[in-house]
Amino acid sequence: MQTFTKDLAHHVGETITIKGWLYNKRSSGPIIFLELRDGSGWVQAVAVKDKVSAEIWKNVEAVTQESSVIVTGLVSNHPKKENIFEIQLTDFAVIQLAHDYPIAKKDHGPDFLMENRHLWLRSKNQWAILRMRDAIITAINEYLHSEQFIKVDAPIFTPNACEGTSTLFAVPYFDLGSAYLSQSGQLYIEAAIASVGRCYDFGPVFRAEKSKTKRHLTEFWMMDAEAAFVEHDQNLAIQEGLVRHIVRHCLAHCQEELTILERDVEKLKKADAPFTRYTYDQAIEKLHELGSDIKHGEDLGNDDEGLLTKDSLVPVFIEKWPKEIKPFYMKLDITDPRRALNDDLIATDGGGELIGGSQREENVDILVERIKKEGLNQADYEWYLDLRRYGAVPHSGFGIGLERAVRWITGVEHIRECIPFPRTIGRLKP
Amino acid sequence: MQTFTKDLAHHVGETITIKGWLYNKRSSGPIIFLELRDGSGWVQAVAVKDKVSAEIWKNVEAVTQESSVIVTGLVSNHPKKENIFEIQLTDFAVIQLAHDYPIAKKDHGPDFLMENRHLWLRSKNQWAILRMRDAIITAINEYLHSEQFIKVDAPIFTPNACEGTSTLFAVPYFDLGSAYLSQSGQLYIEAAIASVGRCYDFGPVFRAEKSKTKRHLTEFWMMDAEAAFVEHDQNLAIQEGLVRHIVRHCLAHCQEELTILERDVEKLKKADAPFTRYTYDQAIEKLHELGSDIKHGEDLGNDDEGLLTKDSLVPVFIEKWPKEIKPFYMKLDITDPRRALNDDLIATDGGGELIGGSQREENVDILVERIKKEGLNQADYEWYLDLRRYGAVPHSGFGIGLERAVRWITGVEHIRECIPFPRTIGRLKP
Repeated sequence: MQTFTKDLAHHVGETITIKGWLYNKRSSGPIIFLELRDGSGWVQAVAVKDKVSAEIWKNVEAVTQESSVIVTGLVSNHPKKENIFEIQLTDFAVIQLAHDYPIAKKDHGPDFLMENRHLWLRSKNQWAILRMRDAIITAINEYLHSEQFIKVDAPIFTPNACEGTSTLFAVPYFDLGSAYLSQSGQLYIEAAIASVGRCYDFGPVFRAEKSKTKRHLTEFWMMDAEAAFVEHDQNLAIQEGLVRHIVRHCLAHCQEELTILERDVEKLKKADAPFTRYTYDQAIEKLHELGSDIKHGEDLGNDDEGLLTKDSLVPVFIEKWPKEIKPFYMKLDITDPRRALNDDLIATDGGGELIGGSQREENVDILVERIKKEGLNQADYEWYLDLRRYGAVPHSGFGIGLERAVRWITGVEHIRECIPFPRTIGRLKP
Repeated sequence: MQTFTKDLAHHVGETITIKGWLYNKRSSGPIIFLELRDGSGWVQAVAVKDKVSAEIWKNVEAVTQESSVIVTGLVSNHPKKENIFEIQLTDFAVIQLAHDYPIAKKDHGPDFLMENRHLWLRSKNQWAILRMRDAIITAINEYLHSEQFIKVDAPIFTPNACEGTSTLFAVPYFDLGSAYLSQSGQLYIEAAIASVGRCYDFGPVFRAEKSKTKRHLTEFWMMDAEAAFVEHDQNLAIQEGLVRHIVRHCLAHCQEELTILERDVEKLKKADAPFTRYTYDQAIEKLHELGSDIKHGEDLGNDDEGLLTKDSLVPVFIEKWPKEIKPFYMKLDITDPRRALNDDLIATDGGGELIGGSQREENVDILVERIKKEGLNQADYEWYLDLRRYGAVPHSGFGIGLERAVRWITGVEHIRECIPFPRTIGRLKP
């Protein structure tokens, strides 16, 4: 019978068995302290020479880092720390003795760690990130269902190189030429809302960008949500609700992980308040005040995003961007048709852009005109135009990059740690 | 303010507004019955000529199938049917009038429907399938979390053509040669269990098979689960628990959808009982009794699966297959090393294979030997062998094909209806 370390609070005074791995060991004469991990958490087992058989003591002395072990003992409260438990070891078995585990306590370079990603995942920080990534996924699924969205998976193989081929991965596809790997499911879930009202996809997307930054991956996970009869303001309200639910869920369920990662929890708590909302014009004005040389009409770079949010306790919406730098499917603001009814949401603490969203153009004639103006091939979009020919409705949606969200909530610097097996321009292994 | 049709039970006697689409219309002199859908469900609105303005009546008369509409009216109980509600129409607006919606009531061929998949999704059956697919996804996430599994996403881009290239899609990947699109995340989540104990991936996988059957797609969704310290019998128990949770969840939450799809709910209810368990040897013996000419040592075909389960009320495990027809990573049965500690789970009602699982070989020497025997390149598996060098533990896992599960639970015949935008050897659009 296996007990999980995360459940030890319910077993104080009982003898239980933990199955896991040795993370660390230190000894103090006739006492050896074993730091164990079992996937659900971490616990210290205390072996006292006088209290165990000679054979058990020999095995405890011999056990090495990352060996797999079965530890039986009495659960007790930690002598000094509240809500921390210890195991007074009474039985001990090594399943497999590990020799020369390659990841030592000393610092390794990122290339070495990435080459050994299959082992690096076991380190305390990586464990905490994996668990928080799962918590964020759960929070997203929960919130969207509570708002009547259902999951409708968009395809990965797409037929047209809709927005230019330079950042698309192409795959030979039987006798049909090339398939392109999806960069967003948006157009597909726009079709699905006319069936189910509100829906989202949540899966991997692919970008053949030759960027080498702390914020780029070639394969990453994206959640796209889309809702019929939702207009710009309500779209922002849904996005804000989602982000605040993620923050609350993680604060409620990931205390241990946040502590391991040394995330400033007070900052996260403060982010759970009404978000700031700037128009693009206001944002540019504020950036100029802050010393940026950004020109009106330009996209915001990382530096601008950082500057604009550096003193903000809450994420910042930037809405209503110039239509020239936004895609054809965004609806324009009826009160100022030079502006799109869109938004970017910028995280606090240097987290950068979390979300991009917009209300979509639902008028078929305007959409055809914009497709032509952008030099796109109308034939590729006939099915998408059908959605406006048969029962067009006002609708809006947005996309959130999962790894961006994980990076912000965990406070981890590099996005390659925010996905279990990162793929970048120079990395396809393990 | 928008009310969803699924919530009408809470609004009887109130005047509410539904936003959606016209699905069907019939008239009886001065009364017009509008069948509406809003994504959350279906409702009939009744317009009576004497009780509305001339303009409203004109609009109701003119509205066409799949036009988008806003309907306001009083919610009442259906005169004859319990738990069905009607709306006595008081106000009506057409958002966009649809002309000549291509999918008529008459039968269309599958090619036409697939070409118009973006519109076909709106039909009642397709709506029900989309919603049940979402319910099944939710049930899987719920059950696995309740059993301490967390979601750890495996990569789609993989470096080696591990199991031969014939059914793999290859993608040119920067300067690193080809990447291959994943067919299973199993090996990766085997690495992750040494960090988190129990985990699963759930995402698209790709198979460049030239099969054209009712059960094959080139892109489909797979859930792979893996657990440390779980051996063969417990692996089967987890699989059975998962499938029974899916069945119960759908019975509890998808009554309307099951009714639309004319699924025999009594049969599903009966499947929620302890599953049958045959060894491969017993299964072959039974198949011979039933008249099959399958030879001992062969894989079961669709016909054999159907024959074996045709009188079974519950899904059937077939365990302990000949090692020769199973992959190198499966652990062999210590009591009979000609057999693998694996299982296939066959659904009832012709649903076919739902799950494949096994205990994994954790001994590095045995694994190396089997890799060599199968003519695989050991260098490609060094990282996978590391998992046995550093803290090997007994462990097991399984994979469930999402569309297979949707097909079984919904009772739909063709798997192409079980995914929103199917991709097959001949189809890459829309």
